[in-house]
Amino acid sequence: MQLYDLAGESENQSWSPFCWRIKLALRHKNIVFETVPWRYFQKEEFASRGLSTVPVLVDGDRQIEDSWNIAEYLDSAYPSSPRLFAGPSERGTARFIKHWIESEVHVRLRPITLLPMFQKLDPRDRDYFRRSREERLGRTLEAVSSGDHRAEREALRDSLEPARRLILEQPYIAGETPGFSDHIVAGALLWGCFACSEDLLESSDPLAQWRDELLRSYGISPKF
Amino acid sequence: MQLYDLAGESENQSWSPFCWRIKLALRHKNIVFETVPWRYFQKEEFASRGLSTVPVLVDGDRQIEDSWNIAEYLDSAYPSSPRLFAGPSERGTARFIKHWIESEVHVRLRPITLLPMFQKLDPRDRDYFRRSREERLGRTLEAVSSGDHRAEREALRDSLEPARRLILEQPYIAGETPGFSDHIVAGALLWGCFACSEDLLESSDPLAQWRDELLRSYGISPKF
Repeated sequence: MQLYDLAGESENQSWSPFCWRIKLALRHKNIVFETVPWRYFQKEEFASRGLSTVPVLVDGDRQIEDSWNIAEYLDSAYPSSPRLFAGPSERGTARFIKHWIESEVHVRLRPITLLPMFQKLDPRDRDYFRRSREERLGRTLEAVSSGDHRAEREALRDSLEPARRLILEQPYIAGETPGFSDHIVAGALLWGCFACSEDLLESSDPLAQWRDELLRSYGISPKF
Repeated sequence: MQLYDLAGESENQSWSPFCWRIKLALRHKNIVFETVPWRYFQKEEFASRGLSTVPVLVDGDRQIEDSWNIAEYLDSAYPSSPRLFAGPSERGTARFIKHWIESEVHVRLRPITLLPMFQKLDPRDRDYFRRSREERLGRTLEAVSSGDHRAEREALRDSLEPARRLILEQPYIAGETPGFSDHIVAGALLWGCFACSEDLLESSDPLAQWRDELLRSYGISPKF
């Protein structure tokens, strides 16, 4: 099995929250996979294969795009390995967490991570990244990143409050055992850590402890 | 079965989001129940029975306090009627929605609803309500309610964005069929509607349509 994973100039720089979701999900399901570094300049080649962006999972002659679709595919194609969703109703509720993280947390990560990500990109990706982001945001990368960093980080930590309250009451976002809900939330935190090369959470934050234990349980050393 | 439900001066004024969760949950489970209006001045009598606040469900010789506990009790005591939680993992994820609504949405409902609620209270409750709220908030009810109402309502609607995005993709918060996640989100919306005697959502809001269909399916006419 192969996973196309967004990479920076170095192959070890991997910060896409959507790719992280799937890397955690594959480990959760004990599926051995090979990571294929992918960069924005390969978009055209991808388009010729009917694909638009990473993550893409290649399983034999199947290629599946989009982290949510991949998670559903994994549970249906590999039902006997640990499940990502306990069932249809848990999947319905987990989908709420996807929307919450994207509308409340990702938006707060963006101004913090944009310039650090740009600086770590493969040089061939930089023009595309700058042009597409500046068009979307209507401002230069530097202008987006010139805000009050301290206030932005505080807003990021505040936005995580529902997950923090939850994790004080139960071991995982999905309950007693981890599930795709955990991978969604951890994916966002890993984006921040790997883009900025530092932890955006306080070490005393219950969410930092939950995240690091989750990573360790999947054999990943929580170093950024 | 009896449900102690927070009431205003009129017994028909019922806006506690926590009580609404349970009224919807009981209808979901097709359980016939009697509503007992409860007012803050009965706190002492409640305390003598080891209770602190509503909702309280009385089922034979059992009394259960706290909306989450009541929901878990209902599924375990009445497993053959429609479930509120599909299973432990869905319950874990639904608990996230409880924390999200309380930390992101309830806080935005408070300044909007505080003074209208006060005005609808039983006269015997007004001193307690004013004193306890003003102590907690460090401001008078009138000061809390003197903000920009239009901006506050917009912030409320914005805070609901993750649920709105979800409901554009699937019929219920819990997925294909409603569950306690739906009752949690609907409870918050009903709080706003009944406290303010008007809908705080635009009629074109997908969440207003989802809420009204949910209410109708439980035989409740969505009039505020």
